Amino acid sequence: MSVDILRVGLIGAGRIGLLHAQHLAGHIPAASLLMVADVNEEAARECAQRFAIPYATQNYQAILENPDIQAVVICSPTDTHARVIQEAAQAGKHIFCEKPIALDLPSIDQAVAVVASAGVKFQIGFNRRFDANYRRVRQALERLEIGRPQILNITSRDPGPPPLAYILVSGGLFLDMMIHDFDMARFLIDSEVEEVFTMAGVMHDPALGEVGDVDTAVVMLRFANGAIATINNSRYASYGYDQRVELLGSSGAISIDNKYANTAIISDGQSIRRDLPLHFFLERYNESFLLEMTAFVDSVLHDRPVPVNEQDGRAPVVLALAARRSLDERRPISIDEMR
Amino acid sequence: MSVDILRVGLIGAGRIGLLHAQHLAGHIPAASLLMVADVNEEAARECAQRFAIPYATQNYQAILENPDIQAVVICSPTDTHARVIQEAAQAGKHIFCEKPIALDLPSIDQAVAVVASAGVKFQIGFNRRFDANYRRVRQALERLEIGRPQILNITSRDPGPPPLAYILVSGGLFLDMMIHDFDMARFLIDSEVEEVFTMAGVMHDPALGEVGDVDTAVVMLRFANGAIATINNSRYASYGYDQRVELLGSSGAISIDNKYANTAIISDGQSIRRDLPLHFFLERYNESFLLEMTAFVDSVLHDRPVPVNEQDGRAPVVLALAARRSLDERRPISIDEMR
Amino acid sequence: MSVDILRVGLIGAGRIGLLHAQHLAGHIPAASLLMVADVNEEAARECAQRFAIPYATQNYQAILENPDIQAVVICSPTDTHARVIQEAAQAGKHIFCEKPIALDLPSIDQAVAVVASAGVKFQIGFNRRFDANYRRVRQALERLEIGRPQILNITSRDPGPPPLAYILVSGGLFLDMMIHDFDMARFLIDSEVEEVFTMAGVMHDPALGEVGDVDTAVVMLRFANGAIATINNSRYASYGYDQRVELLGSSGAISIDNKYANTAIISDGQSIRRDLPLHFFLERYNESFLLEMTAFVDSVLHDRPVPVNEQDGRAPVVLALAARRSLDERRPISIDEMR
Amino acid sequence: MSVDILRVGLIGAGRIGLLHAQHLAGHIPAASLLMVADVNEEAARECAQRFAIPYATQNYQAILENPDIQAVVICSPTDTHARVIQEAAQAGKHIFCEKPIALDLPSIDQAVAVVASAGVKFQIGFNRRFDANYRRVRQALERLEIGRPQILNITSRDPGPPPLAYILVSGGLFLDMMIHDFDMARFLIDSEVEEVFTMAGVMHDPALGEVGDVDTAVVMLRFANGAIATINNSRYASYGYDQRVELLGSSGAISIDNKYANTAIISDGQSIRRDLPLHFFLERYNESFLLEMTAFVDSVLHDRPVPVNEQDGRAPVVLALAARRSLDERRPISIDEMR
Repeated sequence: MSVDILRVGLIGAGRIGLLHAQHLAGHIPAASLLMVADVNEEAARECAQRFAIPYATQNYQAILENPDIQAVVICSPTDTHARVIQEAAQAGKHIFCEKPIALDLPSIDQAVAVVASAGVKFQIGFNRRFDANYRRVRQALERLEIGRPQILNITSRDPGPPPLAYILVSGGLFLDMMIHDFDMARFLIDSEVEEVFTMAGVMHDPALGEVGDVDTAVVMLRFANGAIATINNSRYASYGYDQRVELLGSSGAISIDNKYANTAIISDGQSIRRDLPLHFFLERYNESFLLEMTAFVDSVLHDRPVPVNEQDGRAPVVLALAARRSLDERRPISIDEMR
Repeated sequence: MSVDILRVGLIGAGRIGLLHAQHLAGHIPAASLLMVADVNEEAARECAQRFAIPYATQNYQAILENPDIQAVVICSPTDTHARVIQEAAQAGKHIFCEKPIALDLPSIDQAVAVVASAGVKFQIGFNRRFDANYRRVRQALERLEIGRPQILNITSRDPGPPPLAYILVSGGLFLDMMIHDFDMARFLIDSEVEEVFTMAGVMHDPALGEVGDVDTAVVMLRFANGAIATINNSRYASYGYDQRVELLGSSGAISIDNKYANTAIISDGQSIRRDLPLHFFLERYNESFLLEMTAFVDSVLHDRPVPVNEQDGRAPVVLALAARRSLDERRPISIDEMR
Repeated sequence: MSVDILRVGLIGAGRIGLLHAQHLAGHIPAASLLMVADVNEEAARECAQRFAIPYATQNYQAILENPDIQAVVICSPTDTHARVIQEAAQAGKHIFCEKPIALDLPSIDQAVAVVASAGVKFQIGFNRRFDANYRRVRQALERLEIGRPQILNITSRDPGPPPLAYILVSGGLFLDMMIHDFDMARFLIDSEVEEVFTMAGVMHDPALGEVGDVDTAVVMLRFANGAIATINNSRYASYGYDQRVELLGSSGAISIDNKYANTAIISDGQSIRRDLPLHFFLERYNESFLLEMTAFVDSVLHDRPVPVNEQDGRAPVVLALAARRSLDERRPISIDEMR
Repeated sequence: MSVDILRVGLIGAGRIGLLHAQHLAGHIPAASLLMVADVNEEAARECAQRFAIPYATQNYQAILENPDIQAVVICSPTDTHARVIQEAAQAGKHIFCEKPIALDLPSIDQAVAVVASAGVKFQIGFNRRFDANYRRVRQALERLEIGRPQILNITSRDPGPPPLAYILVSGGLFLDMMIHDFDMARFLIDSEVEEVFTMAGVMHDPALGEVGDVDTAVVMLRFANGAIATINNSRYASYGYDQRVELLGSSGAISIDNKYANTAIISDGQSIRRDLPLHFFLERYNESFLLEMTAFVDSVLHDRPVPVNEQDGRAPVVLALAARRSLDERRPISIDEMR
């Protein structure tokens, strides 16, 4: 086998696992997806059949024990991430892991320490950094098209809430949804957050409140470089998946709009209108998932730094925990308190 | 009375006459509207009362005979234009006249000849040249932002047809509606038309066809400088007044959109939409009517060339007649044939 | 004189006074502007000449003492508002007063009390409520086009800072600039604010910081009805006057864009682009200034409630003071603390 | 081998052949690309290596003689299409052929006759019908969102001209470029053209004129159902690939815009702007190429009518020849003349 092909095993064949399987099997020539594991053996077998993966198993350790496998893609439930990361690192496998690493900092720190001592590559699945719109914002900053960042407003709204059962284990809105926006804020401002303040509430379904979550939240962040960001989340955007940012810089501004399936504008006696935006993250961000995995494969094959590293995995969890604490204690939280 | 104030008489107090009265009375400090005439004496009196005009009359000759009046604004029916123009010119009054000068070329040429020998100012009411959007297109050409003009597409559609009674005396779509677009094509291309070709039909109301008119027409023009233009007209744009142009130049392109009462975009479970554009020409072009009259007043007071002259009044009539002939004879018409 | 014409005196002939004079003199038939006062007598005389106001004076008390005057429009410096309001009310004049009423609550409360006991009309100059864009947002709520308000984001940025001398007496960004946005938040959410949190800084000119002001600020508001708002202000928007809102409701969303002098889009080898938005508030909000004054005149003539009352004048000052305190004390401020 | 997989051979491994190879090999699970032929053997081999095609040859007859091959995709030069189509049909292969079928009607008619008697599927490569924007226009008509079609304006401009050598064999602008727009006009109006009129010229490079072609053309079409269409083409759109349509219907209108790599809007002291549209057809229409081939594969496998048939292949050639004749003879051409 050529040195230019990365041999990969997939751990977890749920929705996001299938997405990565499709990309690894069909769209990334430099990768070869050889094994898939899922505690649900049927899911593993179906994934294997669909994407012509030679070997399916219920037991992810079979992947870690296979010396042919160079890298693993971890898409198992969040509460297993830290453990699987450590075992994979100890087995010498390079690791791509879905976000978040874990829901608490000690677990993250322990996993990161094991990865560091193993010396393997470790990339976190913050795919939005690879989306053409967000990259264009970052590029505007790098090219000095708008000067230094000053005010960032992130809008990130889902068309509907996940099942309650998911919310019970996800850590809630700040950890399962806004975590992407915390990552995006760090990515675009390119500085670390010093203070977090939250206002939030249950505006749609009291059942969400009964399990301790909110469905609507606005968070303000102050960065070390002076920039200020707001993030607004809703789990109930009736018009669909709303994913936009606006960034004011010292000499200009940039904003990005949603993505649409077509550009058609229809005019009649009632209104001038267009169809709703792409409905959810699998459609909206599909290209970015492919690009992040391509980047991971390249990083391993050519021994380059991964584009989203362990610190990028840890920091948004800190911010999510701080945002939640701010809501609970009704005061701004200094990030120093969280360390 | 200061030499800086132009003393004006208004002939015709219908819809467009009232509009000019409002501007002359309230918004053009350099003009003083002293008299108004209308064959309908009641209309004249109401206009006078509404805009505090000192003198109202049924007889426009009273205006022409008044030595205090320096200029007249002719808003009487089209079939009276040529005669009133000549009388006004012979009385030494400067003239602003609504378009078209007349529906036939001999009448136009005779009126223009009298105006020329009288040496008075003579401006035609092609107001759209003063609209901010169209001026921006012209400016783009003058500033060389898009290079030399190559392809011009004019969309000009009304929200509904005028009364049949109007169409019977208006000369039909080419003379009452597309005449504005012929003027605009000349204004933007800044060259003369050499050839005209028309396709048109009655697509909505057979009654329009029975009086010899069409409700939908597309005309193609070839200009002396090589540029090609299309004009499309409909009397039945269900979504409102649609007034746009697109111009391709040798090094760029410019397009203008409609004007809207507000910029609001509403998103819900059905669509992303906005309200319809400004409904008709009085709203859409209000500012341009004020600017054209201000320009006329300035031209007279400071003895400068008028911005829309007799040739600008004649040429679109030639084009309208040629477009109609092209439709009737199903062949392209050379403008040389029309002279 | 007809009972349908309101006889008005203008107090203060600076920039905003001239604007109101123009509207009262030329565009509001139901008003007659009879007197103008300014401590700078030359300014009063020039204003009188320009708008044909019969009487100009250095002494505003001449206006208050004139029994023919029914209403006054107060455009004098902010620190004189409270005093002039009281004197005018005691003289039985109806009052239109520019915002803010005063920079401190005791002055406001005293002025409001005098007005109340005098029983005169009292309208505050929050003109943006009359702007077509903001009205459309309010209308969307009233028509239930987007459901109940949940998240409001207000962007309000100036193209450049005022002179330092102005800032020294204006009360700073929260009182001279964001006060409009506090009013807008109340107008659109139609509920009262319960909590305020601020992050802000000096990002451009240290001189602004030396006089105790900021040039960039983001404020978060929680309303009694549960809605959350953010306001972001900058005194240095390089691309011009940026005045937008986005409102998420329970069943939809609405956003408004800036206003532009034209709709032209130019495409060339470099970019697809349009001209900058209308540059500053006199252009952007001109129509709203006319409409607010028309509404005031109508309220007095027909004895109807004014559309922006004393509570609408007081509440934004409370919010501005709270926002400043939040910045100084780095904590959220409950509005209960401010009363 | 499963009956659900179509075994395909590719004839021609140039630019468009490579595109189809990529789709057939990697993105259409129901197809298996087994052979590739190109007179340039090196090109065939490179294509085979890149997309893991088992067999490459200089001789396309090897494909036709292989009984395992069920269908061929013809991407050879236009002047070979008619001959290869006939041979493939006689060999019993289903056929996907790039447009145009041929540059003259006798060749087309002969090829179509052979296909008909062989009873094989025959699809023409008018990919734009599969583009999401154009499909949405068609859908608006089918759903009666805008009523009956009345005026269609097609803008279709290339960022730069092809090499002169290509133009010498392509048939010129009407056959190599506007042919797509003739197809689109028929697809959207869903009626046949009765009359064609052309104005065109050489506005950029005299060399194009010396070989008998034009670089800028505007064509007007009248359809049997009364609708009127204009098509404007330029080989020199400085701002990139411009592919738009606007359609006025009896109760509404629809327009589609270009596609862009991102939605970012950048504002600074100069302008409000965005990046140029996707640069050329391989990027702009990539998805549509995949969808047309998927549709072909499905048509063969499930014995359904092809979505773009032989009449769809012939009619645009008739229109292109008529448009050229109209230009040469400076008169409208009835389609009856062309039969």
